Amino acid sequence: MDAIAPTAMTKSELEQFLRREFPQLYRTAAVIIEHADGKSCRLRQTYDDGMLRPGGTISGPTLMALSDVSMYVVLLSAIGPAGLAVTTNLNINFLSKAPEGHDLLAEGKLLKLGKRLAVGEVALRSAASDDLVAHATLTYSIPPQRNV
Amino acid sequence: MDAIAPTAMTKSELEQFLRREFPQLYRTAAVIIEHADGKSCRLRQTYDDGMLRPGGTISGPTLMALSDVSMYVVLLSAIGPAGLAVTTNLNINFLSKAPEGHDLLAEGKLLKLGKRLAVGEVALRSAASDDLVAHATLTYSIPPQRNV
Amino acid sequence: MDAIAPTAMTKSELEQFLRREFPQLYRTAAVIIEHADGKSCRLRQTYDDGMLRPGGTISGPTLMALSDVSMYVVLLSAIGPAGLAVTTNLNINFLSKAPEGHDLLAEGKLLKLGKRLAVGEVALRSAASDDLVAHATLTYSIPPQRNV
Amino acid sequence: MDAIAPTAMTKSELEQFLRREFPQLYRTAAVIIEHADGKSCRLRQTYDDGMLRPGGTISGPTLMALSDVSMYVVLLSAIGPAGLAVTTNLNINFLSKAPEGHDLLAEGKLLKLGKRLAVGEVALRSAASDDLVAHATLTYSIPPQRNV
Repeated sequence: MDAIAPTAMTKSELEQFLRREFPQLYRTAAVIIEHADGKSCRLRQTYDDGMLRPGGTISGPTLMALSDVSMYVVLLSAIGPAGLAVTTNLNINFLSKAPEGHDLLAEGKLLKLGKRLAVGEVALRSAASDDLVAHATLTYSIPPQRNV
Repeated sequence: MDAIAPTAMTKSELEQFLRREFPQLYRTAAVIIEHADGKSCRLRQTYDDGMLRPGGTISGPTLMALSDVSMYVVLLSAIGPAGLAVTTNLNINFLSKAPEGHDLLAEGKLLKLGKRLAVGEVALRSAASDDLVAHATLTYSIPPQRNV
Repeated sequence: MDAIAPTAMTKSELEQFLRREFPQLYRTAAVIIEHADGKSCRLRQTYDDGMLRPGGTISGPTLMALSDVSMYVVLLSAIGPAGLAVTTNLNINFLSKAPEGHDLLAEGKLLKLGKRLAVGEVALRSAASDDLVAHATLTYSIPPQRNV
Repeated sequence: MDAIAPTAMTKSELEQFLRREFPQLYRTAAVIIEHADGKSCRLRQTYDDGMLRPGGTISGPTLMALSDVSMYVVLLSAIGPAGLAVTTNLNINFLSKAPEGHDLLAEGKLLKLGKRLAVGEVALRSAASDDLVAHATLTYSIPPQRNV
């Protein structure tokens, strides 16, 4: 498989890979890859009470973890199963509260795909509203020999 | 003037305001507001050799300053002449080199307009290419009584 | 209780508050507040296998959550039980891998305590080494009437 | 010269290098390297009216540029004249206003020096006060063959 083929992995390959790499995500909730094409992706994390913090809003760590996995999915869809790609920077702005009882939707987009670094942004919304819940930018470091 | 009217300032009002607030920008180059509608904006900074660093690429501080002014323009276009709004956070990823001899284009977008904080993102390109040169997210603090 | 008294909450008050606000942290691991004095804090998160991602390193979301709670602890130690203070921005750089089997140590420091915003930084280390594992800066928004 | 020798460049070598790389800094003001030892640095930017924005405070772009050059100085002091090292990410929190008429002081510190990425933080103060004016974290990408 060549390194930078658009859609280097199918949705089902991506989901299998995620279940292996981020088992925490699948303990209580599920992350469904609705779309991933080498440039952008759309994920849905099904609601679970374990996401909540007191007051009935979805916790920051839940949003951070979903941002991270969304960036990883769009990157994998671009370069294939680079298990060693690691997040080097994450910047997230929390914009509004995500209410309990509703799924989360994440739209990821690659801003740059270089040989050593990939940068992307992720917009998070609640399925209950069009308002942004959070917006993140992330950098991943891509290992020199990246298809493992 | 009410606080959150779309397009609270016209393009020419915005440019007058900028010239007063950011005189540095107008010393050598010019910043042209091509569009600003209370939600997004598009600016063009005309090329000037003063933007360069050695090696013939446009300097980081030039890109940071343009990101900042773009966020300010879209915010002003939403809430009117809030001279006291101040940047509290700027996060910028430098993605590719902007070549000498070409204008810079900035597209700003409000991600959140709250009573106390506004968050936005800015995409910077060279007029020479469609690739992103840099991407920034910014937070502005809006003073309690914001129309001065 | 006045708003900006150094050490507005004792360690045991802080731990009770955390258990109520961040119950997720206490499901498998424990977060021990070793120190908190209104300006800085030191936390220890005891190791648990649930922190790991494949490959035997501690996961990003674990580090992000610990950064967030560390900033919250030092803020609470400065202003008292402001349950409504919320994270508005988190920027984290992942610097080295934290090995399995060892506790995490977090040192938080307030950089600014304003009326509306507090900014701090958190340095994360593994108990196994002096190297930094991650470094985060965070902004919290403080509600207008903050003692609840 | 080996790659990671502490204090790979002397102060006067660093200043000559800066004058060539960041001529903008020397047009009106001066940046004095007070200290640089491969791990941390201290710079002083002498005050000049060109740093101001209306209202008599020092402008954001001035603070961003000084953060950037401080990180560059501490990196150069660690790895030698790597002219091709480039900033990939800058995150800055603006904490208080720096008054006109006073020099700026910058303290830079390396948080990580890897083969491909270096991460550091910079604390900025006015010579008029001990309060922080701004705090930045930066990432530089180090070219594969970095001694030019």
